[in-house]
Amino acid sequence: MNEQTARRLAALRARMKETGTGLVAIAPGSHMDWVLGFHPHPDERPCLLLVGPEKEGFLMPALNAEGTRETTDIAFHCWADDAGPDAALTEALEAISATSPGLVALDETMRADFALLLLDALPADTRRAFTPDTLGALRMCKDAGEYGKLKMNAAIADRAMQAAFGALRPGMSELELADVIKGHFLSEGASPQFWIVGAGGNGAFPHHATGDRVIREGDAIVIDIGGRKQGFPSDMTRMAVVGQPPEGYGQIHSIVEKAVQAALKAARPGARARDVDAAARGVIADAGYGDYFVHRTGHGLGIDIHEPPYITAASDVVLEAGMVFSIEPGIYLPGRFGIRLEEIVILREDGPEILSGLPRDLHIAKT
Amino acid sequence: MNEQTARRLAALRARMKETGTGLVAIAPGSHMDWVLGFHPHPDERPCLLLVGPEKEGFLMPALNAEGTRETTDIAFHCWADDAGPDAALTEALEAISATSPGLVALDETMRADFALLLLDALPADTRRAFTPDTLGALRMCKDAGEYGKLKMNAAIADRAMQAAFGALRPGMSELELADVIKGHFLSEGASPQFWIVGAGGNGAFPHHATGDRVIREGDAIVIDIGGRKQGFPSDMTRMAVVGQPPEGYGQIHSIVEKAVQAALKAARPGARARDVDAAARGVIADAGYGDYFVHRTGHGLGIDIHEPPYITAASDVVLEAGMVFSIEPGIYLPGRFGIRLEEIVILREDGPEILSGLPRDLHIAKT
Repeated sequence: MNEQTARRLAALRARMKETGTGLVAIAPGSHMDWVLGFHPHPDERPCLLLVGPEKEGFLMPALNAEGTRETTDIAFHCWADDAGPDAALTEALEAISATSPGLVALDETMRADFALLLLDALPADTRRAFTPDTLGALRMCKDAGEYGKLKMNAAIADRAMQAAFGALRPGMSELELADVIKGHFLSEGASPQFWIVGAGGNGAFPHHATGDRVIREGDAIVIDIGGRKQGFPSDMTRMAVVGQPPEGYGQIHSIVEKAVQAALKAARPGARARDVDAAARGVIADAGYGDYFVHRTGHGLGIDIHEPPYITAASDVVLEAGMVFSIEPGIYLPGRFGIRLEEIVILREDGPEILSGLPRDLHIAKT
Repeated sequence: MNEQTARRLAALRARMKETGTGLVAIAPGSHMDWVLGFHPHPDERPCLLLVGPEKEGFLMPALNAEGTRETTDIAFHCWADDAGPDAALTEALEAISATSPGLVALDETMRADFALLLLDALPADTRRAFTPDTLGALRMCKDAGEYGKLKMNAAIADRAMQAAFGALRPGMSELELADVIKGHFLSEGASPQFWIVGAGGNGAFPHHATGDRVIREGDAIVIDIGGRKQGFPSDMTRMAVVGQPPEGYGQIHSIVEKAVQAALKAARPGARARDVDAAARGVIADAGYGDYFVHRTGHGLGIDIHEPPYITAASDVVLEAGMVFSIEPGIYLPGRFGIRLEEIVILREDGPEILSGLPRDLHIAKT
């Protein structure tokens, strides 16, 4: 077992003890990546890393065992296609002394059939939780290695955004602009993850599906992009326009900018996530646009593009130095335009450090 | 609602009636693609298509509602980030008369937190199942449109395999050969899905992770590849060698070939999936290699690369004309080599039609 995995398993067990969790079950995916640095081939065959109070074991499809064994020395409890996973699961739970865990924390991203297989194998009075108090809590605070990769990805996204700004011309479609962005990510060895280009009224759909809408003079354009390199993503949103912005644009942009600044100011170690949301939301509501800010203020960013902490009106998560999250208020005016400005920050002892180096000003392209 | 969706919802309801299922819950993914022809942006926000005995509704994150509404007229029950999904879920279940469904069929691929959110909202005595008897049963039989897309993808995979055969030289790495395969898929507008190149001893791991192992003269090489175009995948496995095959190769290849032929012969409408598995397994066991055929004989292929029917020793699924599945027996000799030969077939009234046009002979590359 490598040093990072040993350290992270120890940290997980400390959280399990604090929270009274007797078993954590992790499927092939990003939680497993965080613990092990890899995950076996995910498919419909139940595969779970089971972490007990002192020991851990893998419920492992025999088909994937040999390939995976080269990368870990954790004990495997293998099952063959024809036997099915039940006996191997029982054996694994016994081996790690977790047949009656009291409280089990399930990787919330695992397939429903994996989860119910496990729950059915545990006593009926087993309480269940997902991972916010265990893995989620640990993953929120990034170490120097993770910070470095996120910062590197943010710089690539900045350059992809600048490439989009440089290419923007009236008459091109949203998809053509997205192609420039994707091409830039690829040119730097990053894999494009998303490329929302919302021109004019399309920008009023926060998760607009980039399409063949042609960009015209006077369209305000939401550009929300992210790539992935070395296992970590980027995520940023900026605004652009071709020629003169639409009527009323400047005032709304300035409200959203003030909301970003209020959230940045509220984001301090010891504050709650809801305080950051309230700061951004308050600015927008005070300006009379509360009904047009239809989503949370932000989300954590790590191995996953969306992960804890979620910056919502309901979140009691207390912010700590080392947490990485987005601040991305927006105002969406149906049929007219949307404006979202998004920064990824790492929270330092004295406040947030913004990962991007690009200003949040409206980019004005020549007609 | 388009004609295909209406037809498939009607077929689903007929299956629900036959199986006593009062509710089918479908998450953004391939089941939803099959029903609707699309799925909304999948993320951590609970999003479910809920199908009751007569009506259907969408539990929908408000953030994704506007973009999705353009593509469907199914009723949405929206929830905002700050409110959470509980009230909207209750409203949706009431609207489709499925608050007490008796038996609920869950999309087995949905996230665990989606599944438990739903189960917790239903009466405690609700029985639960996954989709093999409902959606799975329907998806097994392909219509002419699906067949056409699978056939087209199979032809692309044939050409990608031929490109690999043409490029194969001693001294190149597994990854370099995989790059040729990926490049070919891309050149035909298909997105590469997997590219197992297992040279020599690596071929004895059925799910070998293609690596930098250099291909040498005398290496038997398992090449298992698939791409995806127009929403449908391909999947095929052939064997190649540079120069002279390793000692004993010919005999093992011939056993695997006979196993393929036995399975092709057993695959008839009315036979059970287990009969096809038994036919292939019997040939290999009779030859003394039963312990080296470590996986099921095949899997269905449709929108998903792995879907019902699974061709296993335990499956009682009765085969019907229109089903599409793989026949892919193998023998894996640790430290020496593996041999797998894989065809995708569509079952016709008079037996299986093989989608690939490539022979299953060993391809011998010049040294």
